[in-house]
Amino acid sequence: MNPKIAKLGYVSLQTSDMETSVNFFQEVIGLECTNKIGDSYYFRAWGDFEHHSLVLSPGETGKVTHFGLRTKRKEDVELFEQQLSAKGYEIENVPAWTTAGIGEAIRFTAPSGHRIELYYDIQRPQVEDSRKSVLKNQTYKSWAKGISPRRLDHINIHTSADAKSVYAFFVDELGFRINECIQEEDGALLAGWMSVTELVHDIALVTHKKLETTARFHHISYWLDDVGDILRAADILKESKLQFIGPGKHSISQATYLYVIDPGSGCRVELFTGGYLIFEPDWETVVWRPEERKLGNTFWGDSITGNELILPTIEA
Amino acid sequence: MNPKIAKLGYVSLQTSDMETSVNFFQEVIGLECTNKIGDSYYFRAWGDFEHHSLVLSPGETGKVTHFGLRTKRKEDVELFEQQLSAKGYEIENVPAWTTAGIGEAIRFTAPSGHRIELYYDIQRPQVEDSRKSVLKNQTYKSWAKGISPRRLDHINIHTSADAKSVYAFFVDELGFRINECIQEEDGALLAGWMSVTELVHDIALVTHKKLETTARFHHISYWLDDVGDILRAADILKESKLQFIGPGKHSISQATYLYVIDPGSGCRVELFTGGYLIFEPDWETVVWRPEERKLGNTFWGDSITGNELILPTIEA
Amino acid sequence: MNPKIAKLGYVSLQTSDMETSVNFFQEVIGLECTNKIGDSYYFRAWGDFEHHSLVLSPGETGKVTHFGLRTKRKEDVELFEQQLSAKGYEIENVPAWTTAGIGEAIRFTAPSGHRIELYYDIQRPQVEDSRKSVLKNQTYKSWAKGISPRRLDHINIHTSADAKSVYAFFVDELGFRINECIQEEDGALLAGWMSVTELVHDIALVTHKKLETTARFHHISYWLDDVGDILRAADILKESKLQFIGPGKHSISQATYLYVIDPGSGCRVELFTGGYLIFEPDWETVVWRPEERKLGNTFWGDSITGNELILPTIEA
Amino acid sequence: MNPKIAKLGYVSLQTSDMETSVNFFQEVIGLECTNKIGDSYYFRAWGDFEHHSLVLSPGETGKVTHFGLRTKRKEDVELFEQQLSAKGYEIENVPAWTTAGIGEAIRFTAPSGHRIELYYDIQRPQVEDSRKSVLKNQTYKSWAKGISPRRLDHINIHTSADAKSVYAFFVDELGFRINECIQEEDGALLAGWMSVTELVHDIALVTHKKLETTARFHHISYWLDDVGDILRAADILKESKLQFIGPGKHSISQATYLYVIDPGSGCRVELFTGGYLIFEPDWETVVWRPEERKLGNTFWGDSITGNELILPTIEA
Repeated sequence: MNPKIAKLGYVSLQTSDMETSVNFFQEVIGLECTNKIGDSYYFRAWGDFEHHSLVLSPGETGKVTHFGLRTKRKEDVELFEQQLSAKGYEIENVPAWTTAGIGEAIRFTAPSGHRIELYYDIQRPQVEDSRKSVLKNQTYKSWAKGISPRRLDHINIHTSADAKSVYAFFVDELGFRINECIQEEDGALLAGWMSVTELVHDIALVTHKKLETTARFHHISYWLDDVGDILRAADILKESKLQFIGPGKHSISQATYLYVIDPGSGCRVELFTGGYLIFEPDWETVVWRPEERKLGNTFWGDSITGNELILPTIEA
Repeated sequence: MNPKIAKLGYVSLQTSDMETSVNFFQEVIGLECTNKIGDSYYFRAWGDFEHHSLVLSPGETGKVTHFGLRTKRKEDVELFEQQLSAKGYEIENVPAWTTAGIGEAIRFTAPSGHRIELYYDIQRPQVEDSRKSVLKNQTYKSWAKGISPRRLDHINIHTSADAKSVYAFFVDELGFRINECIQEEDGALLAGWMSVTELVHDIALVTHKKLETTARFHHISYWLDDVGDILRAADILKESKLQFIGPGKHSISQATYLYVIDPGSGCRVELFTGGYLIFEPDWETVVWRPEERKLGNTFWGDSITGNELILPTIEA
Repeated sequence: MNPKIAKLGYVSLQTSDMETSVNFFQEVIGLECTNKIGDSYYFRAWGDFEHHSLVLSPGETGKVTHFGLRTKRKEDVELFEQQLSAKGYEIENVPAWTTAGIGEAIRFTAPSGHRIELYYDIQRPQVEDSRKSVLKNQTYKSWAKGISPRRLDHINIHTSADAKSVYAFFVDELGFRINECIQEEDGALLAGWMSVTELVHDIALVTHKKLETTARFHHISYWLDDVGDILRAADILKESKLQFIGPGKHSISQATYLYVIDPGSGCRVELFTGGYLIFEPDWETVVWRPEERKLGNTFWGDSITGNELILPTIEA
Repeated sequence: MNPKIAKLGYVSLQTSDMETSVNFFQEVIGLECTNKIGDSYYFRAWGDFEHHSLVLSPGETGKVTHFGLRTKRKEDVELFEQQLSAKGYEIENVPAWTTAGIGEAIRFTAPSGHRIELYYDIQRPQVEDSRKSVLKNQTYKSWAKGISPRRLDHINIHTSADAKSVYAFFVDELGFRINECIQEEDGALLAGWMSVTELVHDIALVTHKKLETTARFHHISYWLDDVGDILRAADILKESKLQFIGPGKHSISQATYLYVIDPGSGCRVELFTGGYLIFEPDWETVVWRPEERKLGNTFWGDSITGNELILPTIEA
């Protein structure tokens, strides 16, 4: 049986301004700090179930060092190692708990240039009573501070590597399904919304002819339950003197969103709600043509709110 | 005792395409048709209490022929007539029920060039059982179709007439209070959000150096109760293939909004919610400088959704 | 010209457990502390414009000592004094700034047994930069903590005094309009939703044959902008281990609500949104019969959430 | 490889009053009619992707005749047939398109007494332009009428059959995972929220010592995107003179809900939003004890809105 990915687990983000980034993710976005080890902070949302969905560490520049995908079964980590080694990928073995909360893992560089970690074992840290939810199926109290999203939703990554081999890797090696895409008439993919879950995307992958570095990280997206929460986020961001894009609604995924930049790392964060789930086993990729790209990205909304707003991608 | 205005009553809108306009206001916006007399349709929202808040009539061009303000007391109509006559305004006496639902009225042209009607007596039409609310303090069932706003909120009018005399007229003759404004350092007003009620504005008045006609009508605004209703409106407008601006939040008034054009008359309609009320008897006008105008108009949001969207003003 | 009331200003609440009450109003409800003088805390919501909408002071029992109404004009305070003295009411003159932020005032006991203060002059305290809104028409940043309502809305008071003279006092002496009521066939009023503003009620007054003390205080109500905010409040209250009633929707006023008790004082607090405004100058009181009382109070919802929840009134 | 269920597909509901039931599901709930064949109506929500999620047929009493589950792969239907036959289940072969839109299927009676259909092949009917969404990933325009839910979410069924064998069947034979449950100290299950998808439940199964018939159908649940939509539904139901339970929030699943009865069939319908998804491959069943049952069902809310509201189950 083929090894399988269960879900997107976490993003490891390096920032050149820890104080600003910690304040942004903790006080403005309102993530919960799970752990602080050495210089690194481990964050998750109040409804995340793993040890963390974001690791924040100091570095010279804003950069996503890698992101983690959890496998379906414990043995899948080794099976992926064998499978990827056989294909020529160089595998790094990461001893258990090197990253807090993450057991034995492997890392490798995808054809897109992104560093990916696969793991199964996790630790679920105890939550102190003052932050613990009264609900036994919820990790923390919700609405403790800031925007207060429920959970990690997805990531969006860019690459200037060869599109064909990049998409093939995610589909054939990692088992992602492309649920929606932007595709040329000749079949060439420009962007793919891919998932191993019933979400429209765990990872959106966009290809470009040329980029500053081959692998770029476009955004990490956190889920909120209601559109009203997105508009409340807009108020909070303005009161925090942060610029953002949105609110808007994507046609692709049908989700309502807001984009804001972590002023420490330069990493874009999406606040996200709504949209559809895919339960159909024979889902046919929804294809958007290049000339429909604008509509695909934006069903409505999308203005830039703020002066001289630049929302660049960062290295990944 | 000085005569007083109680509230904005209705807008009389002429359209060159009745079928399109009726469909827009009735099916898309979701107003209730109160009456149909001759070629005119009388509309109100499910929570409006007068006979109508919008009259739609056929004409050669899209144009607001006049708008109606209801006085505080019956005798105020005559008192205003005396007061305005004494100041040299030419008064037209409109016999009762010339406009369905509206008793004895006077009409005159304000210095801004807008034709204004003042009246007190109104008729409250019976609502047939199938459309009647089960609530005895609500006119129609809500959510019967389309966007389904609760009530008329305000209008926004533009003029190229002399700003000083125009604002003086609304304040001194009609008793409006300027709650927020855009004002030059030297005191010259560029825009005023004015009310006789506790709303931030019943009428917003914007002055321009030059306009196509002296008096222009910028938009009629209908109130919805929740921000979620505004985003639902965005979906409905897109499915109706109508272009719009927003969603966004004004700084001035703090309201969340959407702007859409009636494709029949070219009249802009705002869907509007939130914001603050003014109960303080000593409210000091909130002053925004010309360089803050953009921020005043838009706290966040405001993008144009649609291709080649032109949202012009129409004649008034 | 008759003196006039402009608005409900504030409630002075005594609590037997200051620490619990301060925590409740500041951290759970999320009011802003304006001032702390002696043992008293002065609170207001982020969108309140006066010095405070709630004063919290220590005392032996939970009790509303008085509530304040602001007059339309400065001279109205003295005019009310003359008018009420002439009718035999004993007037207490309260020197300016005895209550922080409140200028020269008079106090008297209404026929309902409630102690009422009338004042005009107020102080508007400076807001420190860290809490100040970026909007010049908004007092504090919104969403800083807890439920975070926008503003004081209304109060609900009960009395066992003679209904006829009690309602007559509010209408004839203070100028309130009864917008909705529960009334016997013979005209006897059981409850009245009364306002001097365009709200359906600034004060709701309910009469009972018998009460623990003649004057009781049922609840103070704070406004939130959206129904989603009410449901968010429900989550916050449950996570704070506080019991509440609702969410529900009143037929009278059409507002969506939640009731929770301050565990310090026993004072009931309503969280409130939606409903209608009254701009019509000839509003006819909406009359509900005693057998419609349940429907009038509750259009839908209203369950008690929590064990053995008792939501009593407190002395006033 | 074991055969697998992909998702809940549809419910086949018999009603003794077709006119009332059609009006309820089409005009009040706002489902779209996909097809009308013979006496049967086929309905789906605007975001459902199969041919229907509800079949409505006339009969002597309100009754769920069966519900359909779609398999992961085409061959799974036959694999299930072999597997279930081998265990002694009597299999009915249903020729393709006997039920409109449903290909070759098998039916059998589960130990719970419920009639279950398994199928893979489906037909996706064309949508006429007037009802078609402008979005290529959405079936119909949303918000066309009534409450307008997005999609089928789950069903809740009751049984008086032996709990142990009933849960074992769904877990061992059909591959459901019990995500939350109410369980006695000795391990006996009283209720299980089970899924094959990442929802907390596709099917909730509740066991009772005694019931009118062994197999009962408690409710069919449709998803809406936002809590505001649930409160809008409450208004619509009241204006339709229909009684309901809620709004409330479940602790189990964390979803906000409303329950209403189809006045034709007596079938309960839940309107449902929010809650969490389960991506973790090693999810541990959240166990609620019998004494926590009330809390598990209701985090807050839950009152009965309406007179003498009885919300019984119907035969299944």
